[in-house]
Amino acid sequence: MVKRKKRVKGGGERDDSPHTPPRRNRRGKSAGRGSGSGGGNWYFGTHAVNSIINNTNRNCLRLLVTDEARPNLRLDNTEHLTISPEIVSRPDLDALLPRGAVHQGIAVQAPPLEETGLDEACLPLEDSGNVVLALDHVTDPQNVGAILRSAAAFGARALVMTDRHAPPVTGALAKAASGALEIVPIVRVVNLARALDQLADWGYWRVGLDGNAPATLADANPGRNVVLILGAEGSGLRRLTRERCDIVAKLPITDAVESLNVSAAAAVALYEMIRA
Amino acid sequence: MVKRKKRVKGGGERDDSPHTPPRRNRRGKSAGRGSGSGGGNWYFGTHAVNSIINNTNRNCLRLLVTDEARPNLRLDNTEHLTISPEIVSRPDLDALLPRGAVHQGIAVQAPPLEETGLDEACLPLEDSGNVVLALDHVTDPQNVGAILRSAAAFGARALVMTDRHAPPVTGALAKAASGALEIVPIVRVVNLARALDQLADWGYWRVGLDGNAPATLADANPGRNVVLILGAEGSGLRRLTRERCDIVAKLPITDAVESLNVSAAAAVALYEMIRA
Repeated sequence: MVKRKKRVKGGGERDDSPHTPPRRNRRGKSAGRGSGSGGGNWYFGTHAVNSIINNTNRNCLRLLVTDEARPNLRLDNTEHLTISPEIVSRPDLDALLPRGAVHQGIAVQAPPLEETGLDEACLPLEDSGNVVLALDHVTDPQNVGAILRSAAAFGARALVMTDRHAPPVTGALAKAASGALEIVPIVRVVNLARALDQLADWGYWRVGLDGNAPATLADANPGRNVVLILGAEGSGLRRLTRERCDIVAKLPITDAVESLNVSAAAAVALYEMIRA
Repeated sequence: MVKRKKRVKGGGERDDSPHTPPRRNRRGKSAGRGSGSGGGNWYFGTHAVNSIINNTNRNCLRLLVTDEARPNLRLDNTEHLTISPEIVSRPDLDALLPRGAVHQGIAVQAPPLEETGLDEACLPLEDSGNVVLALDHVTDPQNVGAILRSAAAFGARALVMTDRHAPPVTGALAKAASGALEIVPIVRVVNLARALDQLADWGYWRVGLDGNAPATLADANPGRNVVLILGAEGSGLRRLTRERCDIVAKLPITDAVESLNVSAAAAVALYEMIRA
């Protein structure tokens, strides 16, 4: 488990005062859809927000909470915060955040975490037991958030994704990650095949999940440092990715369904890795 | 694996779509299904719709598809259908279905499947290897749909839920289930504790998942017929439910996160059951 150490420098360049109440004409722009020019993403949901405000390496810009949700704020490790919670109405939050966001009455604005390098996140700390997860063009933010949560739960070192064909860290992704965004570093790489080669040089076995593989993951489990690679539902691993794998293995599912959901597959595969 | 055999007679007593029926709303009725005023639920998404129209026990009322999505319709086992696909525009589907529904250009209207009884779904077929999943007040439809998909993937017999504090079978649930709604019967019971007693009488071990349990599921695995019981994230199993368990066990997660997502936990627990 690697705690993220860095934050974006100069994160406070946004032009609004942190204490300005939400302004209706900025709502669309700052609706948590990326870093934009406004100084930071909006994150929402009890667990996601509490873990962000309790991360001493985060530069929070604004913290909004409804009166009812105020008791759910966890402020025990927030002496570093330079802002105070602003009480807002639920309709104000509804309007500020993406449509349908399950915000639970809590939202925080913060600049995105700095990207972590492959070496910083993945260089093996011990001779064995290092597990890294790599996603090959998995694009759904909720799936990626859920995968991040399982990665934290099962002690994965990092989540490696391609720069393109992978979702940005939105509020929806962070909500699904339920705090895991502060725990498991996301490493974005230009070329996944090259990153896998690098991981192999560091002693990782490259294990690709593929429903058509002959062996199950339990049978194939190399039992040392492993990078688990999952592709998108349907298309699976790309050819160049698969060619880089030392092992391809499947999960033992019935033929009643085509596949597991990718986040369910990730949870099961991570579990198999630490179970062994 | 139990294929669902029954359907609602004179169905259509619940239409969970809050949306106005499409302009040509008499077509469903003229399909001759005696569908009453509402006609049935709307289901959407490629996998969900294809599995519904290919289920010979389903009485489909209308099938809507955009021109672009038409090649994704799987019509190989649909001789029983008395309706033809209607080509619609994407905005038509957007307007018909719940806001934000990821419909992939395909929707079908059908009466809900008839509820299956506990005995029909769960009476052990063999001396061992029967796995049933029970949910104790898990209310999120996407989680329940995802759990149904994993249940189908790992060969669970049925999904048991309480009548109340469990979601209705909406299009969103069916979409997340990705076809598994046609495979794994949902059993609704008034009293979960009593249903667990009944399952115990039939030889099932009642195994509750609880993050505070001393033993892991792998260590506690009784290795015969099992009903796995999962509670809501946060609150967990209710006292009366926990008291009915023969075993409570945890999944071996780190303390970096409070818990797994309930659908990830279900996938991992099901995997552990069939892995043994």
